Amino acid sequence: MTQRYKMVLAYDGRAYAGWQVQPGQRTVQGECEAALQTISREQSRIECSGRTDAGVHARAQAAHFDLERAQDPDKLRFGLNGILDEDIRIISLAPVSSEFHARFSALRKEYRYFIWNDSYVPPDLRFYRLHCPRSLDIDKMRAAAALLLGRHDFASFCSYRGKGEENTERNLLGLDVDRDGAEIVVRAVSEGFLYKMVRSLAGYLIRVGLGNISVEQTEAILAERCRTARVPSAEPHGLFLWWIDYPAEFQQ
Amino acid sequence: MTQRYKMVLAYDGRAYAGWQVQPGQRTVQGECEAALQTISREQSRIECSGRTDAGVHARAQAAHFDLERAQDPDKLRFGLNGILDEDIRIISLAPVSSEFHARFSALRKEYRYFIWNDSYVPPDLRFYRLHCPRSLDIDKMRAAAALLLGRHDFASFCSYRGKGEENTERNLLGLDVDRDGAEIVVRAVSEGFLYKMVRSLAGYLIRVGLGNISVEQTEAILAERCRTARVPSAEPHGLFLWWIDYPAEFQQ
Repeated sequence: MTQRYKMVLAYDGRAYAGWQVQPGQRTVQGECEAALQTISREQSRIECSGRTDAGVHARAQAAHFDLERAQDPDKLRFGLNGILDEDIRIISLAPVSSEFHARFSALRKEYRYFIWNDSYVPPDLRFYRLHCPRSLDIDKMRAAAALLLGRHDFASFCSYRGKGEENTERNLLGLDVDRDGAEIVVRAVSEGFLYKMVRSLAGYLIRVGLGNISVEQTEAILAERCRTARVPSAEPHGLFLWWIDYPAEFQQ
Repeated sequence: MTQRYKMVLAYDGRAYAGWQVQPGQRTVQGECEAALQTISREQSRIECSGRTDAGVHARAQAAHFDLERAQDPDKLRFGLNGILDEDIRIISLAPVSSEFHARFSALRKEYRYFIWNDSYVPPDLRFYRLHCPRSLDIDKMRAAAALLLGRHDFASFCSYRGKGEENTERNLLGLDVDRDGAEIVVRAVSEGFLYKMVRSLAGYLIRVGLGNISVEQTEAILAERCRTARVPSAEPHGLFLWWIDYPAEFQQ
């Protein structure tokens, strides 16, 4: 009897070419699948809620996989954490109904983009904050964020992966900008994001905060439905996949 | 004319055998003095507010040094930051009166000890948080901290460096314990600390929080004026030298 497992994991994206297995590259999926094979003695594919790019971190990525022979979930988790480097940690692992799918069952995803707005980044944070030495106007960033909130065609705020025929409409449920001293956090919540959408939103809000683009241009850029140089993609090392929300029956 | 400079710097302690120059070891003082010599073409000693141990981090260490030939402080700072690895950053650098002494002019020092109280430490924090998987009772930690506050002989809460004839009385102006989710911060403020005092206070409070020592034993341990196994020294990687307070005329 095949058993499905849900797993929540955190990782430091620095050493990885992103989530997805790629030939000759060290990836989070690749490391996890290799460790799972060692522990379970089965070859199994691990599907995540949404692939993260090279250098992007995760505080709570979710994933699922199937095993032909059911295993004790705590032993699996301890075994995986024993094999994996400390920059990947399995936070929880539990059997789940075969109805569960890490990507399709997700209700909401939360990303957080961290900016350090001061002349120097504290060295302990240097790999996890975008350094922005010039002063950012938080009120302008919030005003632009408010215009981006809700259901829009976000074609101007993503990178096309394929032929460009995909549906680029998304519902942005939350886009908050908060400051605590030098630290600015952009929190984005949606049922689903487009490719590089959060980094594009962060990159755009930073340009607004710097005064390079006026808040009023936001609606025009949205209406263009086409990627422009006015929407840069912020660097990956400030981005964390923070939380995935599932229906109650799939929460652990 | 000799000119004195005050400098504030931050560092990630991981790669360093502490502040103080030691033969054959990579130290913060050693790296800074070498960089300063390259920039200024003078050999100069850099004195800090208080030496940090191997592996201890700093958000705002303060130091002073003298140069025979006065230099533009901004050029010095840019030059030093250009030479130093990114795990040391000079935050500020300015000429200061020769009355200023990084150690003797300090009014108050603040250290923060960071604990992650959950089954796993988020990988991005793994080098900067003490991992404490067992649940900590924050109320007990606070009650013990309240007993340690004020002027006491802290001989039981330090490591002797030398012959043990030094004065081990100190005035603990603040010892706060705060929790935010899994993160617990112990904030210690004093005019001056003994060797390994903050790590001893943190190690002791953790034992109290775990229930290994009762709050009521605190006064007896203080009264013993002697290091005991009941006061372990918490690991260095959770400790940050956070802030040094100087009289207004020496603030920048």
